[in-house]
Amino acid sequence: MNWTLVSSASLNTDTQQAAIARQAILTKPAGSLGQLESIAIQLAAMQGTDAPSIQRPYIAIFAGDHGIAAEGVSAFPQVVTTEMIRNFARGGAAISVLAKSQGAQLQVYNCGTAYPVEPLTAVSDHSIAAGTANFLHQAAMTQAQCAQALAIGKNAVENALAQGCDLFIAGEMGIANTTPATAIASVLLDTDPAQITGRGTGIDDKTLNHKIKVIEQALAYHNLLTLNPSAFTVLQTVGGFEIAAIAGAYIASAQAGLPILVDGFISSAAALVAVKHNPSVRDWMLFAHASAEPGHATMMQALAAKPLLDLGMRLGEGSGAGVAISLLRLACDLHNQMATFADAGVSNN
Amino acid sequence: MNWTLVSSASLNTDTQQAAIARQAILTKPAGSLGQLESIAIQLAAMQGTDAPSIQRPYIAIFAGDHGIAAEGVSAFPQVVTTEMIRNFARGGAAISVLAKSQGAQLQVYNCGTAYPVEPLTAVSDHSIAAGTANFLHQAAMTQAQCAQALAIGKNAVENALAQGCDLFIAGEMGIANTTPATAIASVLLDTDPAQITGRGTGIDDKTLNHKIKVIEQALAYHNLLTLNPSAFTVLQTVGGFEIAAIAGAYIASAQAGLPILVDGFISSAAALVAVKHNPSVRDWMLFAHASAEPGHATMMQALAAKPLLDLGMRLGEGSGAGVAISLLRLACDLHNQMATFADAGVSNN
Repeated sequence: MNWTLVSSASLNTDTQQAAIARQAILTKPAGSLGQLESIAIQLAAMQGTDAPSIQRPYIAIFAGDHGIAAEGVSAFPQVVTTEMIRNFARGGAAISVLAKSQGAQLQVYNCGTAYPVEPLTAVSDHSIAAGTANFLHQAAMTQAQCAQALAIGKNAVENALAQGCDLFIAGEMGIANTTPATAIASVLLDTDPAQITGRGTGIDDKTLNHKIKVIEQALAYHNLLTLNPSAFTVLQTVGGFEIAAIAGAYIASAQAGLPILVDGFISSAAALVAVKHNPSVRDWMLFAHASAEPGHATMMQALAAKPLLDLGMRLGEGSGAGVAISLLRLACDLHNQMATFADAGVSNN
Repeated sequence: MNWTLVSSASLNTDTQQAAIARQAILTKPAGSLGQLESIAIQLAAMQGTDAPSIQRPYIAIFAGDHGIAAEGVSAFPQVVTTEMIRNFARGGAAISVLAKSQGAQLQVYNCGTAYPVEPLTAVSDHSIAAGTANFLHQAAMTQAQCAQALAIGKNAVENALAQGCDLFIAGEMGIANTTPATAIASVLLDTDPAQITGRGTGIDDKTLNHKIKVIEQALAYHNLLTLNPSAFTVLQTVGGFEIAAIAGAYIASAQAGLPILVDGFISSAAALVAVKHNPSVRDWMLFAHASAEPGHATMMQALAAKPLLDLGMRLGEGSGAGVAISLLRLACDLHNQMATFADAGVSNN
């Protein structure tokens, strides 16, 4: 896993400065396009051009099952992970629709599910095991499995680059995966699970309390709150295959200089792991949306991130990022196509 | 102005119910698409179909100058209103770029500017006068001028309908127009101007304090805080040609059953006037974004509106709505194209 510590690519400060200068002379009051200005400037720095654009977004959905699902922490049965993989492949899932609308590449990476999946178009099999172990009783992954999962993410980025993609989005599918994501966030943010545990796909009050207890017990069992463990130790102990794959993908994407659009709660847990492990990765991240999951705001704060959208979404799959692609493109269009005060003959203040 | 009191078209509760039912069986946890679900349902009710879509948005930019600009309440000189009209026509303004990116019709309605504008493509001349009167000393408009401005908006909706458009967006341009918009909101929301007056295009602290005093003096001069005036009296007394045109457009759009996407601060002041005057108009309004202008949140509260975007934008022109078109379209795509649990063979909880 030595590759994960290699520094990320450098942002281009020349094109960043050129983009800042251009924003200041476009025909609008300074700053009046808000985050659309900062997004264009960030993309200019990432893409090394003062005319940034998003032509070919790549959406990698990492799927995996979770041993912790046996504890009854989700509103849906575990078989839904594999059922949804088929739905992704057939174009019926939310992220499938968004990928089509946005003209994005969509590829599913099966990291290991409890139920078998037949060969499907746009689904590649990278199964590590039939789901992680139940982390209430043992580490979710062995170190070797965690390394394998991280490498799946790296592979996805290599595929995205080979196809000439210019934006990397990770999505995920894995019944019960808000539980490992919350466990990771609790440790890395040093926060009481009760403060940040949410309803995931829609559990009731009783199940929510149970979910909090499960996380608390698991963190205690593994001594994660007292040992000050590394980000990767936390990932291996209470994470999931798809979360590790996303963390690996973010690291590889940043190393390759491919801009990342981070989705919601699960993806942000992976982003936390990636940034804690290799802080240089942060430079390459844009943040799509504020998840309705209550722990997400704390994660965003820790990542110094201000997400673009806040639509009350809590679906996962990369769906928030799938929506936010539109904002990135419009930010680029405005940046590239608006007239300057001089060109338009408009008086500046 | 009797036409302004005619009831709006009725929403279709059958297609609304069908859309609600469909959202419940799509392959996602109930409610997990947040506002994208409610937008699709609202559009289904407006369009009378359970497969809503936005094919042809119409953006009408109403431009007008303001006598109150003489009080030094803006960061930009008044000539910028006409300079920006030329910029709209030539495609260099933010809303021009957004209209092109979104495939929207863009038409500028000149309601009356201080400086002359030569004939330009996509700009129609409806000039009422060379700007409104300075409402610090007299009513901004005569009653006849106010009626004329309202009719410009009605005409814009007729044009939109004649071109088969399915979404109406009003934008505006008028140096100093946050001052009349704030004055209107202060009266209609019974709020101290100091609480809701903002920096508009970017005035400094001193000018901000002066702007607040100008509004306070104008409201006192016209006895607007004690007389409990009608919405149209407020509009006529401290409004603007373009604000009246937008109010008229919203009323006409709702009467015609054409969905409205309300932009930011100025448009929301017009929306307040329209809804206070004819409450049935509210049913046809979607709200694009939360403006960075401080009074906007109070307006949204009064209109029971939850805007889709919050990007720190404060440009006007209809730019926030121009961006939000993408969200409406993606909401429709998700609603229409996602698979149901039954079709996809996915287990529901």
